[in-house]
Amino acid sequence: MTQENSPAVLEGYGDLRPYRGNTSETVGSKLLADLDAAYDACDVRDGATLSFHHHLRNGDAVLNMVLAVAEKRGLKDLHVAASSIFPVHESLVGFIARGTVTAVSAGFISGPVAEAISRGKLPKPAVLRTHGGRARAIAVGELPIDVAFVAAPAADSLGNISGSIGPRACGALGYPKADIGKARNVVAVTDTLVPFPVPQIEIDQQSVDWVVSVESIGDAAGILSGITRPTTEPVGLEIARRTAAVIEASGLLVSGFSLQNGAGGISIATADELARFMTDAGIKGSFAAGGITGFHVRMLEAGLFEALLDVQCFDLAAVQSYASNPRHLGMSASVYACPGARGAVVDLLDTVVLGATEIDTDFNVNVTTRSDGMINGGSGGHADTAAGARLTIITTRLTAAGFAKVVDRVGTVTTPGETVDVLVTEGGIAVNPRRGDLAERLRTAGLPLRNIADLQRDAAAAATREAVHPADGRIVAVSEYRDGTVTDLVRQV
Amino acid sequence: MTQENSPAVLEGYGDLRPYRGNTSETVGSKLLADLDAAYDACDVRDGATLSFHHHLRNGDAVLNMVLAVAEKRGLKDLHVAASSIFPVHESLVGFIARGTVTAVSAGFISGPVAEAISRGKLPKPAVLRTHGGRARAIAVGELPIDVAFVAAPAADSLGNISGSIGPRACGALGYPKADIGKARNVVAVTDTLVPFPVPQIEIDQQSVDWVVSVESIGDAAGILSGITRPTTEPVGLEIARRTAAVIEASGLLVSGFSLQNGAGGISIATADELARFMTDAGIKGSFAAGGITGFHVRMLEAGLFEALLDVQCFDLAAVQSYASNPRHLGMSASVYACPGARGAVVDLLDTVVLGATEIDTDFNVNVTTRSDGMINGGSGGHADTAAGARLTIITTRLTAAGFAKVVDRVGTVTTPGETVDVLVTEGGIAVNPRRGDLAERLRTAGLPLRNIADLQRDAAAAATREAVHPADGRIVAVSEYRDGTVTDLVRQV
Repeated sequence: MTQENSPAVLEGYGDLRPYRGNTSETVGSKLLADLDAAYDACDVRDGATLSFHHHLRNGDAVLNMVLAVAEKRGLKDLHVAASSIFPVHESLVGFIARGTVTAVSAGFISGPVAEAISRGKLPKPAVLRTHGGRARAIAVGELPIDVAFVAAPAADSLGNISGSIGPRACGALGYPKADIGKARNVVAVTDTLVPFPVPQIEIDQQSVDWVVSVESIGDAAGILSGITRPTTEPVGLEIARRTAAVIEASGLLVSGFSLQNGAGGISIATADELARFMTDAGIKGSFAAGGITGFHVRMLEAGLFEALLDVQCFDLAAVQSYASNPRHLGMSASVYACPGARGAVVDLLDTVVLGATEIDTDFNVNVTTRSDGMINGGSGGHADTAAGARLTIITTRLTAAGFAKVVDRVGTVTTPGETVDVLVTEGGIAVNPRRGDLAERLRTAGLPLRNIADLQRDAAAAATREAVHPADGRIVAVSEYRDGTVTDLVRQV
Repeated sequence: MTQENSPAVLEGYGDLRPYRGNTSETVGSKLLADLDAAYDACDVRDGATLSFHHHLRNGDAVLNMVLAVAEKRGLKDLHVAASSIFPVHESLVGFIARGTVTAVSAGFISGPVAEAISRGKLPKPAVLRTHGGRARAIAVGELPIDVAFVAAPAADSLGNISGSIGPRACGALGYPKADIGKARNVVAVTDTLVPFPVPQIEIDQQSVDWVVSVESIGDAAGILSGITRPTTEPVGLEIARRTAAVIEASGLLVSGFSLQNGAGGISIATADELARFMTDAGIKGSFAAGGITGFHVRMLEAGLFEALLDVQCFDLAAVQSYASNPRHLGMSASVYACPGARGAVVDLLDTVVLGATEIDTDFNVNVTTRSDGMINGGSGGHADTAAGARLTIITTRLTAAGFAKVVDRVGTVTTPGETVDVLVTEGGIAVNPRRGDLAERLRTAGLPLRNIADLQRDAAAAATREAVHPADGRIVAVSEYRDGTVTDLVRQV
């Protein structure tokens, strides 16, 4: 201060701390030599929680390589908090066996890790959260993260990240966005280090502490599926036609219509039917949301939707559209599905079309365990969208691989029946008794309604194998609802 | 849970709270009837801190209308925490006089509010922060915000905000981004309510609690300046030519060069010179940052920069480019200038060209008070960029309106001299003695170097009026450095 007669404390302001020289740290690069250096920089200790995202899906190499370094360092008792775990993450089974990892939480777990958990190999119960519930748990501090490792298709040395460029471009990066705001440390792991600033910044440098450059973050072939196409299989097509008919009869398929549907053949075939109907009737929808495919992109480009809200791109057409079309918007896992006062996109869905491993006569849906009792999935966005959408439709065949899919009681409740409105099968359409209004509309439209108990009997009659639903034994996983309550427990197989 | 034999507490997990029904709140709209309802919804009480941003600059109507409602409700003792305050905010003088507002903080204050503060009308000392210091103060909790009011050129009823559309489109919205993550409540105030989802989401719904639709958020003519053009005035042009020559001689003007310069005529003329040099020499710069003008856009489009990093658009050409060019990137005030471990864009600047109201023989710069002692400005990004850039150049004439601008001691220290490298005037170029390396380079290039004390004597000789630097009397404002220490105190006039 140039003025010597200044007080130590100024009323209405507080303590006056005089300027004593520019001590601002100038950060020119966050680049570390390797992952080992990231463990040092983040001071990772035994028992730490490391988070990962699943935008690279079954092509992801980052989770495996990060944990391999942990093991080499002799770390123990780590908690892997992933948004999803895939067959490519098989090495995690070894890290669990050797005590490097003793806790796992995720929105979805499939493949060898799921099997190992089901067989009781993981010391602590795995926690399966919905995508929105995971974002909520992070936001409120139920799931504290020590280090969020962000697999970055491209990054600059300051930590700005883009999903839109690089040989492993995956488009939108909605999932890590839920982690980075709360994680104690954030490390970007990239194989495409570009000069500052990375174009199309998806996650900016104020969210990232360190950058590590590696040879490859994954296998492009496992990251994106091929071209997404409607099913051509007759039973699937019949279910899709009926599903589209239910949506048309529901009264929701009017101007401003919004939709979420998955990337499966039946789901795409349903959207295909809807696209034709919307085109013929001149209906312009509002948005399609969730995981986005080239099929959604074509609907956007055909003017059938005003916008796409994309948490994760499923194919190359979606990645390209996301990089270039300003109406193809990204959203964080929080914006997508986090329950709470600020509202999620799932709350605005008119219709969601979802699958099921099993559905029971109370309309409870299991997408967590297989009919043999083994974990193979988890809610992901299933329970979130079912809770939010005005019309939640479950599509399934009556049986698969000899097991009944419409059952008396599901092996694991993933999505509570009270949030499910309609079941569509090749054997008929069942409406949740809570939705008398909807049943009336469908009946008026001449749709073949049946009682779900009848569908269950048909399925049981057609089944050749008995489902395994272990009801006691060690609890190997907890299925959490989006609010953190527990919908079900999964027992050891 | 379907399994009755579940424990109350599960080892390795904790308390099991069974699912008891879907109680998820479905948020379909955050639209309130009016600003009055927003005060109710946010439970605003006497003494609350309300924040505002200045992207609508001298066309902003939101600050005035929000405070008018506060006064009507009888609220007292409010703290207005704005990113900047302009002449259009004159009504704030009345709100201060009547006790509705007793505290003001901002990055920049000009016009009647500045004059009222200088005359001692505000009960508490005003706090003038740098743009980066304001972001830091919010992030660390030094500046807690009760309600952040975000003037939104367009928004949807869920609170997604875009600056790129609507009759008062202003482009990038870097400043409110520093507020929304920490504010207890966030209210979007818009005159362009569009169906969900607003295209080109700049601030998403997970950051916003309420939306209020008003007739007009401001006067478009006051929001954007006209077309930004280089000065044509001879003394200014001479200063610009010398400034460009300093940058060329500095050794920094090579491939990957980065620049921040303001929207004034001399600053633009300097960039014009640089553009010519870069084109001739085939130099491709990295980025231009800060407040962005059509001149920067033309440099980007001419391939002279890889990217623009835009905290605020200054003209229509910038707004249009921001909406359509993926290499024209937005940045928050934090990414722009917040000091700290995660690094700011200012840290990566090769050169910043800044103005001065006064500069003294220690190279301290005053952009806070006029030569008559009256507040008229504040750091904004001045001290931030000076601290970060490798070469900080101050351009000024020796005198203006009869006052010397190179002085023995500045009226108010805004930017410490140790962060300033060169002064360029029509009377010569002075290099900070701390930068002997730079002086050597400029001398080698044949530039006319002078001692700053000589420039000060020339300025004093040419001056016809004596500056007023009140050294005692009531302290009406505190000038904070980016780290929260105090560079100077401003006394009542």
